[in-house]
Amino acid sequence: MNAIPEQFLQSVQAKKAAIKPFPASTKIYLQGSRPDIRVPLRRIDQSPTQTSQGPVANPPVYVYDTSGPYTDPEVEVNLTKGLPPLRARWIEERGDTEVLPDLTSEYGRKRLDDPTTAHLRFPNPRRPRRARAGANVTQLHYARRGIITPEMEFIALRENQNLQAMKEAYGQRIHPGQPFGAHLPEEITPEFVRQEVTAGRAIIPANVNHPESEPMIIGRNFLVKVNANLGNSPVVSDIEEEVEKMLWAIRWGADTVMDLSTGKHIHETREWILRNSPVPVGTVPIYQALEKVDGKAEELTWEIFRDILIEQAEQGVDYFTIHAGVRLAYIPLTANRVTGIVSRGGSIMAKWCLAHHKESFLYTHFEEICEIMKAYDVAFSLGDGLRPGSIADANDEAQFAELKTLGELTRIAWKHDVQVMIEGPGHVPLHLVKENVDKELAECYEAPFYTLGPLVTDIAPGYDHITSAIGAANIGWYGTAMLCYVTPKEHLGLPDKEDVREGIVTYKIAAHAADLAKGHPAAQYRDNALSKARFEFRWLDQFNLSLDPEKAQEFHDETLPQQSAKVAHFCSMCGPHFCSMKISQEVRDYAEQEIEIGMQEKSKEFLQQGAEIYRKV
Amino acid sequence: MNAIPEQFLQSVQAKKAAIKPFPASTKIYLQGSRPDIRVPLRRIDQSPTQTSQGPVANPPVYVYDTSGPYTDPEVEVNLTKGLPPLRARWIEERGDTEVLPDLTSEYGRKRLDDPTTAHLRFPNPRRPRRARAGANVTQLHYARRGIITPEMEFIALRENQNLQAMKEAYGQRIHPGQPFGAHLPEEITPEFVRQEVTAGRAIIPANVNHPESEPMIIGRNFLVKVNANLGNSPVVSDIEEEVEKMLWAIRWGADTVMDLSTGKHIHETREWILRNSPVPVGTVPIYQALEKVDGKAEELTWEIFRDILIEQAEQGVDYFTIHAGVRLAYIPLTANRVTGIVSRGGSIMAKWCLAHHKESFLYTHFEEICEIMKAYDVAFSLGDGLRPGSIADANDEAQFAELKTLGELTRIAWKHDVQVMIEGPGHVPLHLVKENVDKELAECYEAPFYTLGPLVTDIAPGYDHITSAIGAANIGWYGTAMLCYVTPKEHLGLPDKEDVREGIVTYKIAAHAADLAKGHPAAQYRDNALSKARFEFRWLDQFNLSLDPEKAQEFHDETLPQQSAKVAHFCSMCGPHFCSMKISQEVRDYAEQEIEIGMQEKSKEFLQQGAEIYRKV
Repeated sequence: MNAIPEQFLQSVQAKKAAIKPFPASTKIYLQGSRPDIRVPLRRIDQSPTQTSQGPVANPPVYVYDTSGPYTDPEVEVNLTKGLPPLRARWIEERGDTEVLPDLTSEYGRKRLDDPTTAHLRFPNPRRPRRARAGANVTQLHYARRGIITPEMEFIALRENQNLQAMKEAYGQRIHPGQPFGAHLPEEITPEFVRQEVTAGRAIIPANVNHPESEPMIIGRNFLVKVNANLGNSPVVSDIEEEVEKMLWAIRWGADTVMDLSTGKHIHETREWILRNSPVPVGTVPIYQALEKVDGKAEELTWEIFRDILIEQAEQGVDYFTIHAGVRLAYIPLTANRVTGIVSRGGSIMAKWCLAHHKESFLYTHFEEICEIMKAYDVAFSLGDGLRPGSIADANDEAQFAELKTLGELTRIAWKHDVQVMIEGPGHVPLHLVKENVDKELAECYEAPFYTLGPLVTDIAPGYDHITSAIGAANIGWYGTAMLCYVTPKEHLGLPDKEDVREGIVTYKIAAHAADLAKGHPAAQYRDNALSKARFEFRWLDQFNLSLDPEKAQEFHDETLPQQSAKVAHFCSMCGPHFCSMKISQEVRDYAEQEIEIGMQEKSKEFLQQGAEIYRKV
Repeated sequence: MNAIPEQFLQSVQAKKAAIKPFPASTKIYLQGSRPDIRVPLRRIDQSPTQTSQGPVANPPVYVYDTSGPYTDPEVEVNLTKGLPPLRARWIEERGDTEVLPDLTSEYGRKRLDDPTTAHLRFPNPRRPRRARAGANVTQLHYARRGIITPEMEFIALRENQNLQAMKEAYGQRIHPGQPFGAHLPEEITPEFVRQEVTAGRAIIPANVNHPESEPMIIGRNFLVKVNANLGNSPVVSDIEEEVEKMLWAIRWGADTVMDLSTGKHIHETREWILRNSPVPVGTVPIYQALEKVDGKAEELTWEIFRDILIEQAEQGVDYFTIHAGVRLAYIPLTANRVTGIVSRGGSIMAKWCLAHHKESFLYTHFEEICEIMKAYDVAFSLGDGLRPGSIADANDEAQFAELKTLGELTRIAWKHDVQVMIEGPGHVPLHLVKENVDKELAECYEAPFYTLGPLVTDIAPGYDHITSAIGAANIGWYGTAMLCYVTPKEHLGLPDKEDVREGIVTYKIAAHAADLAKGHPAAQYRDNALSKARFEFRWLDQFNLSLDPEKAQEFHDETLPQQSAKVAHFCSMCGPHFCSMKISQEVRDYAEQEIEIGMQEKSKEFLQQGAEIYRKV
């Protein structure tokens, strides 16, 4: 591990590629009910359509923006200072937290005093905040008391994505969707957000120690979200790279990131990420716990784990994956599996349980965990430690036994007003995907589902972003609230920056496909705008409206690099004299001018008569 | 257009990358009932599992092999000679065809005599074959007469993929699937093949002038197939490149290829491809017709089109996409679409219909087209000229009006014993995908469905192999028989070799995901074998069993290039001291050795009692 080059982290200017705004895009803010509720959106401007009557303007398209202040030219960001604490005043105003004089966790204090890591340490740490004695500071707690927090209002504005403007501009031929059990309102209101949180159907990961985060929501009656995993390992990667990956991930659209580091300096890496992350950050605390016992799972104790929870909660981690559903009795159910236990957290806890022949300390201390979580508003992501690691093991007894326990734990967490989501598989063939959602909703009382993929086949390592995106689009459609991305390197190696980009864009596709299929009110406008641009040969608009404008343009340039081709009324697939879009435009003009109503009437009449010239044979 | 470098095309040795056998793979042949029925499969050998009791062998895995004689070291292939005519004897023995002294088509003869293209011409053409007067030489015709052709027997052996051997080796935990309307037998027999062809539920594209092709079947009660589009355009690409792309496509698993060339030398390109292609070749004859009238759709005539059908049928094209369902009355139904008519063939015919204000000549001459097709056994791929080009236009009146007409035409083709499949969309949101299959099966009397994607969102140009693979996996599961691949360049440019690879592997994933979900009897064994290898850290076996062994290994090497890492019991994601697979193996050993039956009993008992320690809250 080398020291962090100060000049590298000092300024975001050094990381231009990771924060470069997208073309034709401007960051705008929707104003909420109070001056400090300013909700970021990205506005994409378009060129006009050229018609025989002259140019006709195409209204801008507004899209959800996860990139944070980095893409706002008004905000000067310095990675060593961290982001401005957007939510600090809201948290403070509630008056139910206090700033602590010191870190509560033993390990946190130890790291702070360690001279050997001084050069790696984030130079401007925040003092930790915690609920006052007896207070509960979770968004669920407020929601249940009828309070609409600024976070909830922020989310309502954000989810709508300037709905009215988009509807007016691109509201033609919108499909109603098939939402299964989802209940999508015509417009998201702050009160709707509150109700969904109250019901436990949605969570707002928002640790009081992560005031830099821009509020977002995870629930099946909202936009499907995407998580990107980061994290170093003993083999490769370091702090600098992880921070850059985080910046890169939010640029491409990650709604949350998980820091899954397992190497040294987990603590320091996480601090750098949190202070600079505008999206919620999740972790798997057991990974760090295992580091402390030198990889010997059987030496883990509740005390070690507890200290880590507090350490991470005071740094600002917004949700914890906790594999409390791996119970002693379920472990033998995995013995005949093709791929046993593939979850890292699950296998650690399984080993501990067997070594001690005791129920997991995560399970037996679950109420104490809740006590910690509610003092900081850390949400649970109840881990699926027994998820299937292969098609053969999908939907088996071990998996569903654990799911039932996760439901039991959900009720306990809710008793403490702690927010909960449930993790899901894994590897599942297409026809068994829906059962996962149906069971999760039933067994876990509609707590939001958060799934990895699932991969719909095992036979394509190197392409598992795709095998899993197929499962992800489907499971999102059926009701999963957040999708954990998978990169092309899954099963093979650690993702580099390009893999992160590929993984996120792939998962934005899956999430958007699910939103369209559910009939999310704000989903289809972007498709309509892009398709209109495509049909009208507005090449740059087509690129700019896409999920990855840079790649779209790069691919187009490979065949037709000339600038003139960007305004050409043809493309490289058919060439200038043979273009269906062009012919189709002629057909449209012809149909509209020459035939008009008469022909359309005639055609309807013809259709009603059975539309056949040949008689049935 | 440059001359073809003779030395380049002379020997396949020059195209090593395109024909290189996969690692640990051997081409084997299953012997049929007669010596010349030899069905190729690829056998993948594996290393043994290392156990404390010593090595335990892992049986080989057999996979469907589309690569043709190129990967057989016993066969010497020379591209200027073409492939050996595998089916020639079968065709001859039937005694219902005759070899013609000359090409029948005017254009074919003209091209043969053209000195300016002599240097581009395939040097060893075959003399054309045609049905004797009054004979019908289609596989459907034979099937209906109760004849099991060698082609049908070949297909039965091929589809089973050495089922019994695979079942014995990897038959654990097989999921039964959800086949919707499919009826998958436990084992594919020649008689089953015949029955499916008879019912029109499957087709065997097998032009008597393409004896080089290895028989394959397209039908929803068989493995889902993948088609790869090739084809030059006036902007780029030439013969040499197209031949190489074909070789490349079949190496990665394309079951058929379509030559969609629109530039000059369409005729010559097609000849090179056909003489060297072991998979059926499809075309869209209207593209060539349009070339002949210099791109002026309104100047097309039945006579021009007819001559092209004969020209291509005598070259050996196995199926023709014909957009005979684009009827005059349907065209105004597209006028208010967001993206009008996006099918090239559809827009050409629409323009013709409007210009003449007449019913399309493809529709009015349909019976004559059937007469030509049955004399060579060319199958119909009835084109979806009015398919939606955007999410907004999915499943609209124009699309479904055309589909109804395609059903009407199917019955006419069947009257002539001509084989038929039906093309499908396009751009469709996930929740509207199934309706496409259900309607197609109903309106077109269960003729096999052959779809492009569909793309489930419009917003990701540059990633449309993925947006469409999501739709493709689903539509395959619902009952689509063949998937037309989409490459990352879709909407942006012409695919290069790497795009073809990416597109095909992506579509093999979609097809396999569909086979798994339908419960195809031969599908899951490969997943089980690969997952077993993964669980046992047999890295090379894992790579070798995958759809793209080269990419899997390359990705692994990026993080852990050392040869030792290929036998290491860990991977780069977690490092040597922190590996869930490793821990899981320990758990398994522990569970098996220490606890055995007693604990499993106890755990079942525990589960039956409700599996809760905490009481309900």
